[in-house]
Amino acid sequence: MKIDILTLFPEMFAGPLSSSIVGKAVEKKILDIELTNFRDYTTDRQNHVDDYPYGGGAGMLLQAQPIFAALDHVKEQRQNLGRVILLDPAGRKFDQTAAEELAREPQLTFICGHYEGYDERIKQRVTDEFSLGDFVLTGGELGALVMIDATVRLLPEVLGNSASAPGDSFSSGLLEYPQYTRPADFEGLKVPDVLLSGNHQKIDEWRRKEALRKTYQRRPDLLADLTLSTEQKKWLEEFKRS
Amino acid sequence: MKIDILTLFPEMFAGPLSSSIVGKAVEKKILDIELTNFRDYTTDRQNHVDDYPYGGGAGMLLQAQPIFAALDHVKEQRQNLGRVILLDPAGRKFDQTAAEELAREPQLTFICGHYEGYDERIKQRVTDEFSLGDFVLTGGELGALVMIDATVRLLPEVLGNSASAPGDSFSSGLLEYPQYTRPADFEGLKVPDVLLSGNHQKIDEWRRKEALRKTYQRRPDLLADLTLSTEQKKWLEEFKRS
Repeated sequence: MKIDILTLFPEMFAGPLSSSIVGKAVEKKILDIELTNFRDYTTDRQNHVDDYPYGGGAGMLLQAQPIFAALDHVKEQRQNLGRVILLDPAGRKFDQTAAEELAREPQLTFICGHYEGYDERIKQRVTDEFSLGDFVLTGGELGALVMIDATVRLLPEVLGNSASAPGDSFSSGLLEYPQYTRPADFEGLKVPDVLLSGNHQKIDEWRRKEALRKTYQRRPDLLADLTLSTEQKKWLEEFKRS
Repeated sequence: MKIDILTLFPEMFAGPLSSSIVGKAVEKKILDIELTNFRDYTTDRQNHVDDYPYGGGAGMLLQAQPIFAALDHVKEQRQNLGRVILLDPAGRKFDQTAAEELAREPQLTFICGHYEGYDERIKQRVTDEFSLGDFVLTGGELGALVMIDATVRLLPEVLGNSASAPGDSFSSGLLEYPQYTRPADFEGLKVPDVLLSGNHQKIDEWRRKEALRKTYQRRPDLLADLTLSTEQKKWLEEFKRS
């Protein structure tokens, strides 16, 4: 997968893109990431990329010109831009379905906004607006990093253990069941007996039930989208009674 | 504000924490951030911090011991831990209200999970579980960075222009109106005439109306939480008819 990132702060990316799973994907050449500082493409003599908003108001806005010119440059280098993504509070909510969708793309281009906002005309070159959630960030960089991490870990051969991704929260429609590792007794806090029993049928049943319980307690909205099994319906009745 | 971050990947933080608004807050000493690699606190002879899940299954889980020991260390250094935050898909959805709430705290401690998950007993030391959204990340680092960015920019004296934050999307309950900066005509794409008119009453009215229009079109769910003015009700009727 090819990813291009247009940003004023390329130094923000070095750590996150070389660590952990994303770093490994780059090392294995599954992922090819290029950073472009769009300040290099401004035609402004003082190298400004922002200006005051028309109609007045606080803060500065990114101008369209440096972004358009940087996109033209990337397109020339890469032959293509793929999907051109802008992080915006009005965008489509980013979720696991969106990550799965993006993981099937050959190329993605992220535009990282900054300052108070950007000239609305930038959206002429954007194919997808995404929002991480109902909060405001200083710039688009962290949002792009989050989307890249969630997407790249779904690429084939990226996660060491390919059994890992499909068991995640959300991919089954439920939250994940509670997990425990050694020691069995840590400062008096004990692992549930069933997990030490060696009875795999009982363990699987406990996990299915606890995943359902956690979802029922913490994210009942997720259950509305599921077709429940007879077993799940029986357990839900039990949770409601208790 | 004091922030402590417990992580296995401290190198992920150098770029994001020294750039942009968060970097400026550190420079101005409004923010004091400490990173703690909890691998330094494991009692395992091979320095492992993870182990296989009880009951079988793919992937490795973070053990409770290194996290507990690292928290004890931070508490000793800082006298306090403040709110102890874990990023978890089952957690409370992080939003602007949560950011405003955290911005009033004197101290925050983030635990960044990694690998397939963590031993459930870690939650014994956690005061707040947050989720960025319905997607899965490789680790808690990017989530912590996002929460820190959204929170720190709300601290008094952090944003250069203090008029900026309250005009953000969500703080008024609406999405932000479209914005434009120079030039007035960019490759044939024009700024709306009203913004060039110099008539501030008309400009303010246009902005109020366009913020409402965008929210109506893209996030109608946000309108349900608002008490609408007579003007807003009239405009909504107009949008519905067109």
